[in-house]
Amino acid sequence: MNAGTHHNVIKVGVIGAGMMGEVHARTLTDSVPGVLVTAVHDTYPGRAAAVAAAVGAEAFDDVEALLDVVDAVVIASPDEAHAEQTLAALARGLHVLCEKPLATSADAARSIVDAETAIGRRLVQVGLMREFDPGHAEIAEAARAGTLGDVVVTRSVHLNPRPWVFPMPAERAITQSMIHDIHSVRFLSGAEVDYADVDSVADPATGSIRYVAARLGMSDGSLGLIDLNVGSGYGYRVDAEVIGTAATMATVDPATTTTWRAGSVSSAVPDNWPDRFVLTYRDELVAWVASIRSGRPVGASAWDGYMANVVADACVRSEREGRRVAIERPDRADLYRR
Amino acid sequence: MNAGTHHNVIKVGVIGAGMMGEVHARTLTDSVPGVLVTAVHDTYPGRAAAVAAAVGAEAFDDVEALLDVVDAVVIASPDEAHAEQTLAALARGLHVLCEKPLATSADAARSIVDAETAIGRRLVQVGLMREFDPGHAEIAEAARAGTLGDVVVTRSVHLNPRPWVFPMPAERAITQSMIHDIHSVRFLSGAEVDYADVDSVADPATGSIRYVAARLGMSDGSLGLIDLNVGSGYGYRVDAEVIGTAATMATVDPATTTTWRAGSVSSAVPDNWPDRFVLTYRDELVAWVASIRSGRPVGASAWDGYMANVVADACVRSEREGRRVAIERPDRADLYRR
Amino acid sequence: MNAGTHHNVIKVGVIGAGMMGEVHARTLTDSVPGVLVTAVHDTYPGRAAAVAAAVGAEAFDDVEALLDVVDAVVIASPDEAHAEQTLAALARGLHVLCEKPLATSADAARSIVDAETAIGRRLVQVGLMREFDPGHAEIAEAARAGTLGDVVVTRSVHLNPRPWVFPMPAERAITQSMIHDIHSVRFLSGAEVDYADVDSVADPATGSIRYVAARLGMSDGSLGLIDLNVGSGYGYRVDAEVIGTAATMATVDPATTTTWRAGSVSSAVPDNWPDRFVLTYRDELVAWVASIRSGRPVGASAWDGYMANVVADACVRSEREGRRVAIERPDRADLYRR
Amino acid sequence: MNAGTHHNVIKVGVIGAGMMGEVHARTLTDSVPGVLVTAVHDTYPGRAAAVAAAVGAEAFDDVEALLDVVDAVVIASPDEAHAEQTLAALARGLHVLCEKPLATSADAARSIVDAETAIGRRLVQVGLMREFDPGHAEIAEAARAGTLGDVVVTRSVHLNPRPWVFPMPAERAITQSMIHDIHSVRFLSGAEVDYADVDSVADPATGSIRYVAARLGMSDGSLGLIDLNVGSGYGYRVDAEVIGTAATMATVDPATTTTWRAGSVSSAVPDNWPDRFVLTYRDELVAWVASIRSGRPVGASAWDGYMANVVADACVRSEREGRRVAIERPDRADLYRR
Repeated sequence: MNAGTHHNVIKVGVIGAGMMGEVHARTLTDSVPGVLVTAVHDTYPGRAAAVAAAVGAEAFDDVEALLDVVDAVVIASPDEAHAEQTLAALARGLHVLCEKPLATSADAARSIVDAETAIGRRLVQVGLMREFDPGHAEIAEAARAGTLGDVVVTRSVHLNPRPWVFPMPAERAITQSMIHDIHSVRFLSGAEVDYADVDSVADPATGSIRYVAARLGMSDGSLGLIDLNVGSGYGYRVDAEVIGTAATMATVDPATTTTWRAGSVSSAVPDNWPDRFVLTYRDELVAWVASIRSGRPVGASAWDGYMANVVADACVRSEREGRRVAIERPDRADLYRR
Repeated sequence: MNAGTHHNVIKVGVIGAGMMGEVHARTLTDSVPGVLVTAVHDTYPGRAAAVAAAVGAEAFDDVEALLDVVDAVVIASPDEAHAEQTLAALARGLHVLCEKPLATSADAARSIVDAETAIGRRLVQVGLMREFDPGHAEIAEAARAGTLGDVVVTRSVHLNPRPWVFPMPAERAITQSMIHDIHSVRFLSGAEVDYADVDSVADPATGSIRYVAARLGMSDGSLGLIDLNVGSGYGYRVDAEVIGTAATMATVDPATTTTWRAGSVSSAVPDNWPDRFVLTYRDELVAWVASIRSGRPVGASAWDGYMANVVADACVRSEREGRRVAIERPDRADLYRR
Repeated sequence: MNAGTHHNVIKVGVIGAGMMGEVHARTLTDSVPGVLVTAVHDTYPGRAAAVAAAVGAEAFDDVEALLDVVDAVVIASPDEAHAEQTLAALARGLHVLCEKPLATSADAARSIVDAETAIGRRLVQVGLMREFDPGHAEIAEAARAGTLGDVVVTRSVHLNPRPWVFPMPAERAITQSMIHDIHSVRFLSGAEVDYADVDSVADPATGSIRYVAARLGMSDGSLGLIDLNVGSGYGYRVDAEVIGTAATMATVDPATTTTWRAGSVSSAVPDNWPDRFVLTYRDELVAWVASIRSGRPVGASAWDGYMANVVADACVRSEREGRRVAIERPDRADLYRR
Repeated sequence: MNAGTHHNVIKVGVIGAGMMGEVHARTLTDSVPGVLVTAVHDTYPGRAAAVAAAVGAEAFDDVEALLDVVDAVVIASPDEAHAEQTLAALARGLHVLCEKPLATSADAARSIVDAETAIGRRLVQVGLMREFDPGHAEIAEAARAGTLGDVVVTRSVHLNPRPWVFPMPAERAITQSMIHDIHSVRFLSGAEVDYADVDSVADPATGSIRYVAARLGMSDGSLGLIDLNVGSGYGYRVDAEVIGTAATMATVDPATTTTWRAGSVSSAVPDNWPDRFVLTYRDELVAWVASIRSGRPVGASAWDGYMANVVADACVRSEREGRRVAIERPDRADLYRR
């Protein structure tokens, strides 16, 4: 399909011009035909101007003004602003790609589900983008196809190179980082989460959280096992695995070269998520633009974003209280039936 | 050191001529100089006779009679007999290599610790043999040396190819198989277990346990994470990992060849533990015989066997009750100070 | 850089609408902003029409007519047409991305070098695209930087899944497939080829070439070792390696998942080159379009294409005669000085 | 089989108490039941005395005197002495395990074949011990069984960490190190060598050989490709591969642990051959002792040792003359029919 010749160009605004927003703005510009980033907003005007200049867009200091001049919006602002900005975009009927988490609480995420349900059409895609990683997609497909047998355990291992705040509270580790893994477990297993059972390791000197280990009881009787390393000390890794009764399937850490030197053989480990997932972010954006054109939504829905918030809240409570926390799962709204 | 010329040959009895006992008897005979298997016992006389013939030993139908004619004894009988037979051997001052578990309950294991303490000399080595696996030993050494930084998580993943009883109760999965992993976590981290928090996955049709996931709270604030797969469906694997603040170190699954064929590249997975650990069992026996000669005990002590039982009991209770179970750790007896 | 807003769109013609031409046409359309495929030619009109329709372009049955209406051209026609079509495009001052081989003989390739030299500006990029594979690029960079020590051996291993003609003559295996590896050895080592020494394995029943093993004596005293498997029987692989006196560096075969099943652990092998190099072809096109805009040529030059033909000719002769064949290397024209 | 009880102990002499001789003496003593090292010879009496003391043997300064008091002999003396000492042992009807090379010339090796043929019984095993490496054995078995299809290429890659003499002449690199690979190619493919075609890389400053690349034309039309790295700069590796028309099979480099640290993931590479092949040397000795008892020869025969010398001589000539050298293969003597 030659988007450039057959279609009007889609005008995209990017809200939030931090590292993530800049990656999205540049990727849309350099790698996604048929779309133009025309507007960039950030609460730091200089930041908005810099990214806008880099991609040939206009800088905005007002979100509402930006929303008035675009067809679709990428929300990469601070987490606290996600829900409100998404609702504002929905109020104008815009397509939204909202970075994870959809909201900072389950209740706020629910309001987005309700707004979208009222519209009666899916306009929100959530940046829980591992679905677009080929390894994750292959495992999910195999699990769905039954070639692994019954799912017994779904594992998501997530290693950040270093804490992004210090001291790190468990709540932020869970809501900002482990939320990816919560979605992975749902996506890979195809099951829902019935209870959360979470423990953690803290730096004894500072109390800063080093590691969160979550065990999720799944609706099919399987377990979801999540390992979140807040600071691996060596780099970034995401590994996923589905253990079935017939076979087990796992992602492979990417590497392009191997070097033998001085008594050892080694490969580089990505420093952080942009190195690991640069192509995944691109594929996410390509799929998002294609879904805007086709009207067929892809990726994580507002419902998925909401469920990730629901489970994250339970994980936070479980970690704090040192016991299993049951999850009252709401009925899936019709708009999100699969 | 030429054991054969400088030393008297050590006469070893093997109690229990099942698969494990036969492996020990043959390995001692074929690969360990300076030792002779002179006596074999089994409750099935035909089995004892067969193994005895294979190694040039005498078959016994009475354990006490066997104990009277040997210098040392390998106990590979059914788990229920371990404690009593070990006590009988200790009563004669014999060296004992007792297969895991040392006993089927913490109380029974404690009686062996007490008997050995009364003797005042360590005579018991427990067949928690992963200490002799080079990968496990290297990781433990790095963790001890501090080159990994603070220990954050110690992981032991243990996959059996298929259930050895059916339906499998959680208790047997823990006491007979996961007991290795409990010891691994203690051995690799150098820390003790403060609490156990265990969940499991069962076959919905039969209730047979498929998977046990244990989270152990360690005395240094780290976590021990154990995955026990009762039936992987494809083979046997044991993987260990210590995640530190500075580095992470993990064992590598053994493979001797890679084959490219018909669209895939593959390596064989060991079918079961003898394939995976044949050299480890040999090294365990070599070290045991050397320790008998030198008087310097090696490997897992009766205390380690006892602690494994203590933690296993807590795991069984936690799995049953769905909550964390704290462990009242007894003081380490002087005989076992490190 | 926002190509779409700051620049005129580049109109590209694709000559040759076979598998390779279609990959290029679709990739330019779907993944490269700022460029439009406006014209497609093939000697089979139906084929040209199909690909043209897929990308929103016009089908041409005359190459000259196509050249009249585009800014740049991708030549993916049969090898025999490459030289003449490249010369025709140069005559119009068009930018050319010519698929390998640049020509079917060194003399024909020389005429392109001469034409470009007469123009005095580099307009031709040759589709020896492994330079854009991240693994190859990293190794070349390390070799250039001296971190591997002196280069001792440069290896390129190239496995095709099955013969693309049958019976396969050595000449075609070398000129059509091994030509990539010849360029890889020059690119990775940074040295030129002084002599070729080639042997082969043929199917004893049909004489069809199965394997070509080339040893290239390099201008720095190192060796280039090429293994070309005409039919691996299992899939497609390209591996490169530079062995230095201080370190050795090699590419890693890509894999996204690992599966444990039925006694083995495996990963998929790409079936053929599109699976292995889809992103490399995209990166080649992105770099080509950027070089057209910037005026700074990238990738394999006409000189590189010519040298590949020179070495390939020597390899063909060496294979036929069973002896080393020395290469009279022409002086590098000024236009191609590095 | 309980060698210790059913058989007389075999008295073994070790001739040559350098690194290799000491490894053999210690391995026989520590790991091979049913055998005693009773005598050690070295031209340096202090060296003989040290190794003799370590294993409880007697030191000899006269080879003939040693041969008079043993049942079997391991020859690990300098290469130049192998042939004469082997003949002396054969003259007494002793079993011989002679380190590679069997001789320093094909003619000298032939004299051993003739002597053994005259005796009419195979008494000589040559220390071309890779047959006892599990990876090599599995590949050879698969190639024999036909599961790889027709053999197309057999590869042996051999990396020494550093030159063992300096400057290194090509002849020594071939005769002392590549001789293993020559045997590997014959063993793995099951074919004989028709011609040798060898090139090399030398240090331009000193002329010391850095790398030898050999291409062997095999009797079944396949190629044997050997890479000998005289000084890898990082450690020791041996890799073997058989490329067939249906599948390809290769050895896996051994590793026991993986470490993630500071942006890379690495495994240790063995420093030199004892680290890589310690278990292989043990298995070679176990098999040798068993073959003495059973009368069924195993491993590389005197004929294999002779053929390795024949091919090595052709390789030396080819490297010197820069051209293919045909091999006049003698008929296999009846004693060595397979």
